[in-house]
Amino acid sequence: MNFELIEYMERLKKTKERMEYRGIEVLLVTDPANMNYLTGYDGWSFYVDQLLIVIDDEEQPIWIGRTADANGAKVTTWLYHENIISYPDKYVQSQTRHPMEFVAEILTQIGQDKRAIGVEMDNYYFSAKCYQTLCNGLPNAHFHDATLLVNWVRIIKSNLEIALMKKAGKIAHNAMLEGIDAVNEGVRGCDVAARISYAQLKGTSQYGGDYPAIVPLLPSGERTSTPHLTWTDTPYKKGETVILEIAGCYQRYHAPLARTVHVGQPTISMKNLSEVVIEGLNTCIEFIKPGVTCEEIEEVWRNTVEKYGVFKESRLGYSMGLNYPPDWGEHTASIRKGDKTVILPNMTFHLIPAIWSEGDSFEISESLRITSTGCEPLVTLPRELVVKDDSTFKNLDPVG
Amino acid sequence: MNFELIEYMERLKKTKERMEYRGIEVLLVTDPANMNYLTGYDGWSFYVDQLLIVIDDEEQPIWIGRTADANGAKVTTWLYHENIISYPDKYVQSQTRHPMEFVAEILTQIGQDKRAIGVEMDNYYFSAKCYQTLCNGLPNAHFHDATLLVNWVRIIKSNLEIALMKKAGKIAHNAMLEGIDAVNEGVRGCDVAARISYAQLKGTSQYGGDYPAIVPLLPSGERTSTPHLTWTDTPYKKGETVILEIAGCYQRYHAPLARTVHVGQPTISMKNLSEVVIEGLNTCIEFIKPGVTCEEIEEVWRNTVEKYGVFKESRLGYSMGLNYPPDWGEHTASIRKGDKTVILPNMTFHLIPAIWSEGDSFEISESLRITSTGCEPLVTLPRELVVKDDSTFKNLDPVG
Repeated sequence: MNFELIEYMERLKKTKERMEYRGIEVLLVTDPANMNYLTGYDGWSFYVDQLLIVIDDEEQPIWIGRTADANGAKVTTWLYHENIISYPDKYVQSQTRHPMEFVAEILTQIGQDKRAIGVEMDNYYFSAKCYQTLCNGLPNAHFHDATLLVNWVRIIKSNLEIALMKKAGKIAHNAMLEGIDAVNEGVRGCDVAARISYAQLKGTSQYGGDYPAIVPLLPSGERTSTPHLTWTDTPYKKGETVILEIAGCYQRYHAPLARTVHVGQPTISMKNLSEVVIEGLNTCIEFIKPGVTCEEIEEVWRNTVEKYGVFKESRLGYSMGLNYPPDWGEHTASIRKGDKTVILPNMTFHLIPAIWSEGDSFEISESLRITSTGCEPLVTLPRELVVKDDSTFKNLDPVG
Repeated sequence: MNFELIEYMERLKKTKERMEYRGIEVLLVTDPANMNYLTGYDGWSFYVDQLLIVIDDEEQPIWIGRTADANGAKVTTWLYHENIISYPDKYVQSQTRHPMEFVAEILTQIGQDKRAIGVEMDNYYFSAKCYQTLCNGLPNAHFHDATLLVNWVRIIKSNLEIALMKKAGKIAHNAMLEGIDAVNEGVRGCDVAARISYAQLKGTSQYGGDYPAIVPLLPSGERTSTPHLTWTDTPYKKGETVILEIAGCYQRYHAPLARTVHVGQPTISMKNLSEVVIEGLNTCIEFIKPGVTCEEIEEVWRNTVEKYGVFKESRLGYSMGLNYPPDWGEHTASIRKGDKTVILPNMTFHLIPAIWSEGDSFEISESLRITSTGCEPLVTLPRELVVKDDSTFKNLDPVG
């Protein structure tokens, strides 16, 4: 485990305070990041149903998952083994049984079937069928929507969590340098992705990398009109923009980072766009400090760039940290109009003022930790449009 | 796109036949693999709500997603641009609005709000809240559970799909050889994962790799008592077992593959276990052909290994192919007791008779394509317990 027991107990205490405030007596935690946050549980087992049961007056949560994964819970969590309960494999991806039937039976057996039960209605890995099955199996329970309840506890990191995120930042730094080095005319996107991923997983000589919650987003050419395309095996051509949005990850904690590389000399308009966006990013970073709100940051951005004719429809950033696929974002605070979340020390944001269009596209970002007086980037790398104008064809060592 | 329009039309036709059979007039497809299967849509955007609307009497599905991703739909699908509809960013991870409110409005505007609507109740990325929001927004609709409806169309592959899976098989082959080469006494798991991932994404010199739906599963030592742990940065010690479960992926099509490496000479019991499991695997592969059922394959396995005292609680395999995180399995047929699915040509299975225990653990698998008379592995690699007894300390080139 990454943390002393005392840190997990503190997280559980804060979770129970929020449960009490919301009138929730029993909380079912299905989000893998929330499961990890409360118990240390870590495995790629979230593709089957699993959860924690947090009961208001019980010291320890109960872990429920597939039998094959129960040893994973024993190895990775601080829970007593008697609190690790597993369902037989016949429930897995079955068309006649559902794991939540098993969960409902357990809740009934331990006398929790008539209580106020919170479920993460809109977190990942809690399907509509999960909810329906629980409702059918627990007719006397009162269900409450506990979406993001634990996520809101996660939004302020401990200093130990910040230390892990700084390690992730070092990995992001290395992986981005690998990616930037790899992008050249004639190189295939898949080869760039391979080098980035290698650096992400290897980590440093002092500590290993973990898998980020999102694979390298690596659109190029016309594919930069949209943020979430990955890569192809078509070699880059002179004049193409390549966007690299990646993260370093250490023990499930992330430091995302985006940069844009131009293959060959950029056009004037592309250069101008990059300068405006970087000015907007820098102005936001200077502005961000405890006490300001998310929407005020967006306003600073807008006031900086609108005068140059740059507009951004999508949000400017979001809280992030501990996570599992498919997202490193925490789904709590977003830096955008209408979000009145007050910035506090040890919040951590991915500030990503990216512009995607069918014309010029430019993406640059920083992972920021809020300090007592301002904010600090988790990664130190120049804020610039990277130009790769190397006419030498660089052929990577082919594998196959 | 990977396929001619005619193949997509054929898939859509089969989907509509199943819709009609189930009394579904409008199908909402939220599973990213199903979205890709029907339209080609490919992007790491499934971390926000997105879907296809398949209407019984309309030629083309409608794609709905986030505004920033609409260009991704234009670039990757065969849909007319007017069938690509996007919701504003204010709906994204909002605590006051939900994308399914937007979807309900669109369905109402196009006169589909009083119809029999199928939803993928238990596929990934259709949350309980998604369903609740749709029910509230469409009070006159009749909802049907369409879980796995498209997945059951996907279970039989076209020859073109098989060709992509064979390319994935070649990548799996290369990545497994990289991994096996990397595992040695004193080497860190993260360095092995990095080399595997590099080979997975790079692909071959002829074609690039895509990201598999699951990262390398790489438990070692006591962590092999359970299947879904990834890696650590602790160097391997002599006497440890290292399990490698990985896939090659090409254009979202997978060929999973597992092998077990022993660092130093294995014990007699470990060697015996591996031989029994390999005998069971081989016997199943000889048995599998069109016309047999999934449960009959499991029975063959059981009859082969039980006499040696080997028992397996979890399923022996499952249908797989096209997919996105968190799973390369298709959730349709499972090779286990009670599954009466009849094996047909061009079905593709991951046959994985793995044994995880707090004593010896051994995992070996094959990706199989059903032929007209039997089955063929997508990867050709010896079926054996790999012993690495190299006393030379191999230090990989450190990045950081």
